[in-house]
Amino acid sequence: MYNAEPLKTNNHNSNEATVLRPVSVGIVGLGTVGSGTFKVLQRNAEDIARRAGRSIQIVHVGARRDHPDCDTTGVRVSRDIFEVARDPDVDILVELIGGTTTAYELTMMAIANGKHVVTANKALIALHGNEIFAAARKKGVNVAFEAAVAGGVPVIKAIREGLAANRILWLAGIINGTSNFILTEMWDKGRSFQDVLGEAQAKGYAEADPTFDVEGIDAAHKLTILASIAFGIPLQFDKVFVEGISRMESVDIKYAEQLGYRVKLLGITRQSDRGVELRVHPALIPAGHLMANVNGALNAVMVIADAVGPTFYSGWGAGSEPTASSVVADVIDVARVLTTDPTNRVPHLAFQADRLENLPILPIEEVETAFYLRILAKDSPGVLNKITAALSRADINIEAITQREIDEVNGQVPIIMVTRKIKEAQVRQAISEIEAVQDVVDRVICIRLEMLET
Amino acid sequence: MYNAEPLKTNNHNSNEATVLRPVSVGIVGLGTVGSGTFKVLQRNAEDIARRAGRSIQIVHVGARRDHPDCDTTGVRVSRDIFEVARDPDVDILVELIGGTTTAYELTMMAIANGKHVVTANKALIALHGNEIFAAARKKGVNVAFEAAVAGGVPVIKAIREGLAANRILWLAGIINGTSNFILTEMWDKGRSFQDVLGEAQAKGYAEADPTFDVEGIDAAHKLTILASIAFGIPLQFDKVFVEGISRMESVDIKYAEQLGYRVKLLGITRQSDRGVELRVHPALIPAGHLMANVNGALNAVMVIADAVGPTFYSGWGAGSEPTASSVVADVIDVARVLTTDPTNRVPHLAFQADRLENLPILPIEEVETAFYLRILAKDSPGVLNKITAALSRADINIEAITQREIDEVNGQVPIIMVTRKIKEAQVRQAISEIEAVQDVVDRVICIRLEMLET
Repeated sequence: MYNAEPLKTNNHNSNEATVLRPVSVGIVGLGTVGSGTFKVLQRNAEDIARRAGRSIQIVHVGARRDHPDCDTTGVRVSRDIFEVARDPDVDILVELIGGTTTAYELTMMAIANGKHVVTANKALIALHGNEIFAAARKKGVNVAFEAAVAGGVPVIKAIREGLAANRILWLAGIINGTSNFILTEMWDKGRSFQDVLGEAQAKGYAEADPTFDVEGIDAAHKLTILASIAFGIPLQFDKVFVEGISRMESVDIKYAEQLGYRVKLLGITRQSDRGVELRVHPALIPAGHLMANVNGALNAVMVIADAVGPTFYSGWGAGSEPTASSVVADVIDVARVLTTDPTNRVPHLAFQADRLENLPILPIEEVETAFYLRILAKDSPGVLNKITAALSRADINIEAITQREIDEVNGQVPIIMVTRKIKEAQVRQAISEIEAVQDVVDRVICIRLEMLET
Repeated sequence: MYNAEPLKTNNHNSNEATVLRPVSVGIVGLGTVGSGTFKVLQRNAEDIARRAGRSIQIVHVGARRDHPDCDTTGVRVSRDIFEVARDPDVDILVELIGGTTTAYELTMMAIANGKHVVTANKALIALHGNEIFAAARKKGVNVAFEAAVAGGVPVIKAIREGLAANRILWLAGIINGTSNFILTEMWDKGRSFQDVLGEAQAKGYAEADPTFDVEGIDAAHKLTILASIAFGIPLQFDKVFVEGISRMESVDIKYAEQLGYRVKLLGITRQSDRGVELRVHPALIPAGHLMANVNGALNAVMVIADAVGPTFYSGWGAGSEPTASSVVADVIDVARVLTTDPTNRVPHLAFQADRLENLPILPIEEVETAFYLRILAKDSPGVLNKITAALSRADINIEAITQREIDEVNGQVPIIMVTRKIKEAQVRQAISEIEAVQDVVDRVICIRLEMLET
């Protein structure tokens, strides 16, 4: 049976602002991702409602123990997680316990009870997805799993919807953050695999049993999912060729670097006349490639398709809130497809039209950035002092300064400066004063500088 | 009035495979993007139907002239483009004429006639989006514009849906391909702005009037849209601070490089307590950053949000089929929200369950890649010859070979090789023969090599 009571009666001809009833979510599992999901749903409730057009409420949590960061006041809490799958008040069950036995039972029970399911569980989908989706289709419910691949990067949505016009030719992904962190450290510091792994385990970046990560199994789960959505083939984890990074030696990473390559653990799938390639293994890739510059625990997926060509997606592939970001996006997506009421569509500008805000736009004079300045001056005594005096009057600190004697032409020398972060108005004042200095020739070249730090 | 006849009656309780009637599309404009859209819809019709669960049919084309690549046999063709907006057979009007006067009239007429609109027109949305969306809401129709920003990269979908759980903090984009191509050439070859622009115009990469591209106006249109969907503010193009690249000198790009930076034309928007920054200008960014490695005509957008952290999206920002990719994805999206029938949802595995294909998975022995090989051998005469003989018997061509005398330890020397692309079975045969050579000590280290070329 399809979720018997539609969340809202369809009402195509009405222009009135309709109010959709809240969507009720049950979260199962309050570990790393579960607590992240709980926190994001609570912290960003207002912005989420502005986008979704309705509020998303956590009504039930199933977890064997509490989480110190999650205040469950007013939320039903069950130690028996199956209670959540039985709760008639739950519209969407969010499965975040991991593993493939209990998680499978729970998911199938939720589907049988007419609930939509959102999961971050790549092993569950890679191994049991075919059955789970068949059961979901039979009941008319959705099973969403954006968080299963590349954590917070919406790459499943990109392939499944954003590239839906294309014949996808192949894709390659750095889809295990632990392996990428280890390879990056081995490359950057010449450390051994065992050394880096030990540290990662001590710091909690890597699991106590790192087999799934370093032997490529986790990446193979994710590649299984990516290949299916790219080519329209059933999930078939057992056919993935898998080779991990545990035998990788830093000397090969060094030689690869000398040849112009970096080493990454890649998941690759490609469609050809002879069949579909499905493989996870370390690979040398050209050092100048975007993929080669995906370092540390970042993930990235590159997709090559016939119309769009290559597209590239990157971000944190794991972690509490990055993964929660995709889980919550799935919850909103599931809520959207429940009615055809235009109010329930993705709003044109992401937020509901009546929830747009008229925030002030900052005038450029008030914007703060660092600046690169090039000043062409006669190589005369005192000119640098006059320039720095002008900077000082405008309260500008200098990060770096170079006077390029080497570039002197006709007794004129370029002075290159990088400022600290300052207001545009300050740099404009300084420039007008500097341009008035007698031995400064030509206008001052001024380019903003952005560190793009996060 | 909302599109009077729903495409399909809602039928929540049915498990039968329902057949949805085709969606009828009218394309207006058969220029670069229009012809690309026409070709992609025709060429990939089968795969698109496998994903959308229904066929997408071009029923009407409005264009002042034909396009040699588009066979319009069986399609109604009108020289008066407004005929398409009046055609009762058209469900979705695809506006690809560009400009903001006729395109505005056409879009408003289509909406008034209850048609959904898909457009690639960033100027139209940036300047008139607020009115257009208000009119669309009143009629209950959709206006989709993924192709308006970053061409084929589904960045609007990523921000609007994929990151819907987040409070977005800021974003920065390389969102004008012409400017990025010019800056890349100036950096790479030390050429002047005028020189590169002239060549780009001669080759048709840049418009005859390049003002919109090189003065930052096109980027400002796109930034206007990105800021609205990121922060939930109205579109306000007139408040963007805009500075282009026409005064950029290659000497500053050279100095920036020496300081560890690259120069890119960025669109930046950031939300702070003081207001929203909204600005397009050239900027120095750290050379090691992913954004600094977005070269040529590629576009990229980096979004920083509270839960997910940084995510990064890149691909071709313009061109016939990359842009068509987003236009067609929008057409499919619009078709999806018209009914709540589960058949009409995004399928779990991207393709309809009954349209999955059981393509063969290639055994790893049949997969072709290049290989990096490291062979540790005693530094004795004849050993290299025996190794190359084994490679020759396995029909393996060598791309590069280095014998690292410098790394000799205890009379043992590593021999590093990179092969041409060969089958896995070949390399395995060669390795087993090489490992049997008397003076080869230890196992052969073998790592696959992927050029990731597109």
